[in-house]
Amino acid sequence: MRTFNVDLGDRAYPIHIGDGLLDSDHLAGVIRGRQVLVVTNDCIAPLYLDRVLSTLQGFDVATVVLQDGEQYKQIDTLDFIFSEALTKRFSRNATMVALGGGVIGDMVGFAAATYQRGIDFVQIPTTLLSQVDSSVGGKTGVNHRFGKNMIGAFHQPIAVLIDTHVLETLPQKEMSAGMAEVIKYGLLGDQDFLAWIEANIQLLMAKDTETVSIAIERSCQMKAEIVARDEREGGVRALLNLGHTFGHAIEAHLGYGGWLHGEAVGAGMVLAGRLSQAMGMLAESDVTRIVTVCERANLPVRPPNGMTVDDFLTHMAVDKKNIDGRLRFVLMKSLGNAYVEEQVPSDLLNDVLNACCS
Amino acid sequence: MRTFNVDLGDRAYPIHIGDGLLDSDHLAGVIRGRQVLVVTNDCIAPLYLDRVLSTLQGFDVATVVLQDGEQYKQIDTLDFIFSEALTKRFSRNATMVALGGGVIGDMVGFAAATYQRGIDFVQIPTTLLSQVDSSVGGKTGVNHRFGKNMIGAFHQPIAVLIDTHVLETLPQKEMSAGMAEVIKYGLLGDQDFLAWIEANIQLLMAKDTETVSIAIERSCQMKAEIVARDEREGGVRALLNLGHTFGHAIEAHLGYGGWLHGEAVGAGMVLAGRLSQAMGMLAESDVTRIVTVCERANLPVRPPNGMTVDDFLTHMAVDKKNIDGRLRFVLMKSLGNAYVEEQVPSDLLNDVLNACCS
Repeated sequence: MRTFNVDLGDRAYPIHIGDGLLDSDHLAGVIRGRQVLVVTNDCIAPLYLDRVLSTLQGFDVATVVLQDGEQYKQIDTLDFIFSEALTKRFSRNATMVALGGGVIGDMVGFAAATYQRGIDFVQIPTTLLSQVDSSVGGKTGVNHRFGKNMIGAFHQPIAVLIDTHVLETLPQKEMSAGMAEVIKYGLLGDQDFLAWIEANIQLLMAKDTETVSIAIERSCQMKAEIVARDEREGGVRALLNLGHTFGHAIEAHLGYGGWLHGEAVGAGMVLAGRLSQAMGMLAESDVTRIVTVCERANLPVRPPNGMTVDDFLTHMAVDKKNIDGRLRFVLMKSLGNAYVEEQVPSDLLNDVLNACCS
Repeated sequence: MRTFNVDLGDRAYPIHIGDGLLDSDHLAGVIRGRQVLVVTNDCIAPLYLDRVLSTLQGFDVATVVLQDGEQYKQIDTLDFIFSEALTKRFSRNATMVALGGGVIGDMVGFAAATYQRGIDFVQIPTTLLSQVDSSVGGKTGVNHRFGKNMIGAFHQPIAVLIDTHVLETLPQKEMSAGMAEVIKYGLLGDQDFLAWIEANIQLLMAKDTETVSIAIERSCQMKAEIVARDEREGGVRALLNLGHTFGHAIEAHLGYGGWLHGEAVGAGMVLAGRLSQAMGMLAESDVTRIVTVCERANLPVRPPNGMTVDDFLTHMAVDKKNIDGRLRFVLMKSLGNAYVEEQVPSDLLNDVLNACCS
């Protein structure tokens, strides 16, 4: 088992990565009170809920099984969690456990952030994406009909348990989506890690436990280092949005149930690469490396059919990462060296989008 | 104008108290961005909204007017705020302004705490209760059908503007409710302030501007000192709940639209006094002083007609201040010297309630 600490002062917490953690006593070991509310969805519950509950004997345990799907990531769904906790008279010393992917993690984290103004929560992420992304950073929240992730809070878990064994049941499409974020860490800050990913992409896509563990650990470490330097997202944390300005626009254009987040980020990273090239920083061979590694992870490398330049510009204008309406992009000076660019000439942006949109 | 700082490190903020602040440029001076969402209710809007808006020329201003009343303090109501902010494309640099009493302050504070994971907000409290209570402490939130204030967050305002002039339009019954909290500060930690309140109760109830300003300032200072020592409510902050364990039970028993919060706290403080007496700490003359000052503030000094000992015990058992089901009371060793008691013998509690319940 691999363990490291996300260093956030009095909100520091450990991430444990290992094969079979779900059945271990790690969860019981981190819970501080006696009351535990395990929240999962109807896709994960039949696979793993009983195994988690069997490690919680002796606790006062309640469960909530939500419907699976991004369309349920909304404020109304939280009421299932709040009502269960309140009818069970769970106090401020209760702990919520998020067993599932990013949607469950975001919702349960937000419920824990706001139940009686904040209680403990533990994340047990069951997708590669949530293991390498939402298990670090403390971002929680729900969507609003007028925008994704618009309502939420920063709330750190008390621990994250990553059982690599659960990836066995993860659909290959979601494995690809998770790999997009892994690749992103290489591109934004570690060219050696990028080279390692390129060398090990087949083992990774084959879910080789040891190789995947290394990728998860390095990804979480990189995110943790960045978050520790910028917990509330004023500066360097913006680098984590490499590929996301374009990616969010793609997701907004396709609507819920279109591409997976990671798929949109895949195409978005290629666009960020092309824009970096247009700005005179990356070589054609660099962009080819981005395209190739994404393709080998079965990720899309161009925008969805029919999405126009105007579609991109419209959706990017409302992205919440854009301060007071100004467009910001995470670009690469070189592979493994990203930065935030606020002065992209609009003709260059148009040229890149024109060349990539079908 | 009186100004003092609530000292919370990087979340410190000023409280300005003065006659006519509503019409001054203080609000414009504290707002950091250009986008401002002023939220108020349909009782306050006709009285003060235009005056506040007239001080915000040059800003990008939106307004939301909610229905007045505790029954609207719920998560669904927040959507009016979120929807307005999102349709106006307000960014993370926007500021929300809460113009109203405690319900507005709690809801707008919570909306600001969770809009895009937290934005600035300014409080302009328009009741004595909210001026001396919710303007300090950062508690925000909404009620749930299974409990009051069960969903919320700690979120500090960037500034609080208290215009004592607005008390002119405050109903006398609400003036009394606010006085309950003022009296509470004297009882919990400052016998000199208690004596000053007793000496000035007529001027206070007559809304004499200068006298009321002094009471507000001292109340806010006392709360600020306590909160600064215990921002997230682990220890000394519990003293602020003097009278509230009983008071919450009264409110829960009567339901929404029964007594005002301050009225329940008034009767609750008398009960806390009687329990302190039963525990051998206060003299009969001390309890008489509590009863007298509450009566002169037109506050109830005994439980509502028909409320039984069992009603109290049932409602107190679900109060969220009680860790893992144990009853905690804020009692007084002497007037002006409160502490938290977790070991109240149940027969003493029963005796006191029996003697007070009609």
